[in-house]
Amino acid sequence: MTTATQNPDRLVIAGKEYGSRLLVGTGKYKDMDETARAIEASGAEIVTVAVRRTNLGQNADEPNILDVLPPERYTYLPNTAGCFDVDTAVRTCRLARELLDGHKLVKLEVLGDQQTLFPDVIATLKAAEILVADGFDVMVYTNDDPIVARELEAIGCCAVMPLAAPIGSGLGIRNPLNIRTIVENAKVPVLVDAGVGTASDAAEAMELGCDGVLMNTAIAAAKDPVLMATAMRKGIEAGREAYLAGRMPAKRFASASSPIEGLFF
Amino acid sequence: MTTATQNPDRLVIAGKEYGSRLLVGTGKYKDMDETARAIEASGAEIVTVAVRRTNLGQNADEPNILDVLPPERYTYLPNTAGCFDVDTAVRTCRLARELLDGHKLVKLEVLGDQQTLFPDVIATLKAAEILVADGFDVMVYTNDDPIVARELEAIGCCAVMPLAAPIGSGLGIRNPLNIRTIVENAKVPVLVDAGVGTASDAAEAMELGCDGVLMNTAIAAAKDPVLMATAMRKGIEAGREAYLAGRMPAKRFASASSPIEGLFF
Amino acid sequence: MTTATQNPDRLVIAGKEYGSRLLVGTGKYKDMDETARAIEASGAEIVTVAVRRTNLGQNADEPNILDVLPPERYTYLPNTAGCFDVDTAVRTCRLARELLDGHKLVKLEVLGDQQTLFPDVIATLKAAEILVADGFDVMVYTNDDPIVARELEAIGCCAVMPLAAPIGSGLGIRNPLNIRTIVENAKVPVLVDAGVGTASDAAEAMELGCDGVLMNTAIAAAKDPVLMATAMRKGIEAGREAYLAGRMPAKRFASASSPIEGLFF
Amino acid sequence: MTTATQNPDRLVIAGKEYGSRLLVGTGKYKDMDETARAIEASGAEIVTVAVRRTNLGQNADEPNILDVLPPERYTYLPNTAGCFDVDTAVRTCRLARELLDGHKLVKLEVLGDQQTLFPDVIATLKAAEILVADGFDVMVYTNDDPIVARELEAIGCCAVMPLAAPIGSGLGIRNPLNIRTIVENAKVPVLVDAGVGTASDAAEAMELGCDGVLMNTAIAAAKDPVLMATAMRKGIEAGREAYLAGRMPAKRFASASSPIEGLFF
Repeated sequence: MTTATQNPDRLVIAGKEYGSRLLVGTGKYKDMDETARAIEASGAEIVTVAVRRTNLGQNADEPNILDVLPPERYTYLPNTAGCFDVDTAVRTCRLARELLDGHKLVKLEVLGDQQTLFPDVIATLKAAEILVADGFDVMVYTNDDPIVARELEAIGCCAVMPLAAPIGSGLGIRNPLNIRTIVENAKVPVLVDAGVGTASDAAEAMELGCDGVLMNTAIAAAKDPVLMATAMRKGIEAGREAYLAGRMPAKRFASASSPIEGLFF
Repeated sequence: MTTATQNPDRLVIAGKEYGSRLLVGTGKYKDMDETARAIEASGAEIVTVAVRRTNLGQNADEPNILDVLPPERYTYLPNTAGCFDVDTAVRTCRLARELLDGHKLVKLEVLGDQQTLFPDVIATLKAAEILVADGFDVMVYTNDDPIVARELEAIGCCAVMPLAAPIGSGLGIRNPLNIRTIVENAKVPVLVDAGVGTASDAAEAMELGCDGVLMNTAIAAAKDPVLMATAMRKGIEAGREAYLAGRMPAKRFASASSPIEGLFF
Repeated sequence: MTTATQNPDRLVIAGKEYGSRLLVGTGKYKDMDETARAIEASGAEIVTVAVRRTNLGQNADEPNILDVLPPERYTYLPNTAGCFDVDTAVRTCRLARELLDGHKLVKLEVLGDQQTLFPDVIATLKAAEILVADGFDVMVYTNDDPIVARELEAIGCCAVMPLAAPIGSGLGIRNPLNIRTIVENAKVPVLVDAGVGTASDAAEAMELGCDGVLMNTAIAAAKDPVLMATAMRKGIEAGREAYLAGRMPAKRFASASSPIEGLFF
Repeated sequence: MTTATQNPDRLVIAGKEYGSRLLVGTGKYKDMDETARAIEASGAEIVTVAVRRTNLGQNADEPNILDVLPPERYTYLPNTAGCFDVDTAVRTCRLARELLDGHKLVKLEVLGDQQTLFPDVIATLKAAEILVADGFDVMVYTNDDPIVARELEAIGCCAVMPLAAPIGSGLGIRNPLNIRTIVENAKVPVLVDAGVGTASDAAEAMELGCDGVLMNTAIAAAKDPVLMATAMRKGIEAGREAYLAGRMPAKRFASASSPIEGLFF
């Protein structure tokens, strides 16, 4: 295909190719117009919608997100934000499939509590098994534990999405070594989901070898969401290209004969 | 001017406007061709050349950098790399001015030793005074001490360039709080010079409020220098835009009522 | 009791009081003599032994650890190091109980793979349930996920032991915020297990509010294990006392009116 | 000498031996009684007093610090806190010498501004030269620049005291690599001065190879200053012993064949 030839570095999720590695949420914006402009600026091709909070047609009388973000243009990624148990999460995915005419791609998150919004990985594994068996393409939100990531991949999830930091925290990548380990051991795409606060965080995720980043608050809660969306688009591209370009080794000094080692700070 | 209207966010150094905030070195590349292609990809408008290591016309028989990087297109920033005392540094700037037909813009660095390549700030202050008095526009390499930065500005330097980490180390920004303090207190442009290793480092420098970043090894010593140059260009833009967009506050959790505080990790 | 009156700050695990908050392993030393001297210097009252690697009487003809570390003096904490599945871990605990005349206190670890030695938290939860039902007092090795920690506590584990970093890495506390969150939400003791490399790491764990630290390699693999054991004893005490003393707030400058906030580095 | 034989690891400053490596300030306490108890608990043998803020006999009618901290027991280290220029700093040292009967040991600090309390290293160098020529034993507060540290040593200062972070910030060691570099290149004792916030910070300073740590706010501004003083004493000892014991190498995993390298996080 022409496009693939022009830019061979493309993200493939569940068999479909994407040029952008930035996935964005649709919540927390001032209004639908700001939502549309920020997402446009982000260059995202995949947009995630919280099925329990967004009108995908459940409420016939209210504004429908599908009108603002046309499904011909964006790949929808319905997510289970706000689900704290297996059944609710599974039911939410099925509702989304119905509303979106058999759409199979979902982002599963089963949360552990209201305070931390950490995933409940036990429930997540159970829900993932049910959804995979039911024919869904499951992108899955998880903690940054390499063993849990491996299990989710083994179950058949099409992408593993470890947190960088708690949802909505903006703290950046708390444990880069864990993210790196997940990337090194994975055969499916690994996307950082949650915790990114600014453009350098997004770049860092990509430099660790991630295949993409999903974010919402970092864009929507910036003072200027549209400009931050542009910043994030460039940050993702910068990080990806730096990863592909192969960074210089870090050394204490230019005069050092070997990369930094031995000491640990 | 039209361009300025189109993009009001421009870097001004010594009265001249630039669209790019990435300044690059010209050393350490495989050959002149790679140099030219990487610098092209970086989008840099200011290129720094080590007068003591680069042929600006001193050696009539050898390849001249001016042929590769035409001075009509690039603003030359002759630097005093390899100078360890005041006299050598001052003499090197005067040589550059001669070779470049009265060119006044220079980057002063007076190094403290061969191991660390840290600046000798005492000698740097002395050389800066002499050069400013002699009519030069002095961009000055320094450590990340806010008081030294303030002195260099008081002397009349047109830009202050604190290190992120030792020259050629690629360690990234070792002390972001110091860089931030320098930025907050400066009236002249602050550019990070030295220590950046990858694109997220460059973005972070800009997010701290720096006006630009100068780098050489991070691009030249990448496995693919041209691709890394593109990454750095985007990283700089991403960081600048994120700074202007105003990032979300960092919090321990989305549910937290205030930005992170009290605890310190 | 007199001692409790003298020092009211005591660690209580499964109903028993301890004066020391440093728990140590018994492996990786040069010989039995070094083991005994290092453990003596550490001041530890609880020593953990890998049942599958240590002779607790399984091999009647070989040196028995019980002769070196008399059980009248030390509380034994048999552990399941080297167990990669539920059954092996459960069987190993039962073997220890037999060899140690009905001893109920065990440290459960079910590992996820040979490379990372991360826990398999799913298997760990299953094994913990079985062991608790079988009357064991289960101290449990886990990742630093607050939700998993909560589940292990809910099952009835008597102490939760998150990793600071991978076993044997010496990388220190990779994600202090997670450890802090686990501590804040727990009603049972929280002890950092794995990843500590030096004394300041141990102090930091205690400053985060942990009830204790378990370590082995950081002492055994130091150049001078006996001196490092003393260092660790003091580091634990220093960190505990600093936690109880209530540290000063961190601020950018003495002149700042509020603790550090807003910015995030 | 007997004591030296018993504990050969002693701090030597200006020819005098000390058993403690923790130096403490005398300001910011609730009252003289708390001052005395905290300093007692710290085990410090050297106490620093701000000549411009403390009554060393200047005011005959007011309580004299010499009555609370008897000079037979403590080595006094008069300091120039609050001095922002060379002359004031030099005069302050001379005043202290007079008040303390020819006492030669002083801590020089010449501050750069009220906001950051960073040293003015240019003025510090000048004042140090004058004081050394005048026969003082000068311990000198400085930034964490290895070249400035080298100059201060060359001038004849008997100890170099880089900041860990701004005075009164409690931020801990902002740039461990710089402190390490200063230590590696110095022939006189290097003591961290300013910025320590809690016991693990003090331990870390010692693990980097520092000869001691000076602090004031971290103890005086803790909720329980006396307990924090004990914590700091143990933290210093822990860090020193860990340094002498030779820590284990840090690795990504126990299974890794070499210390951490190549990657940089």
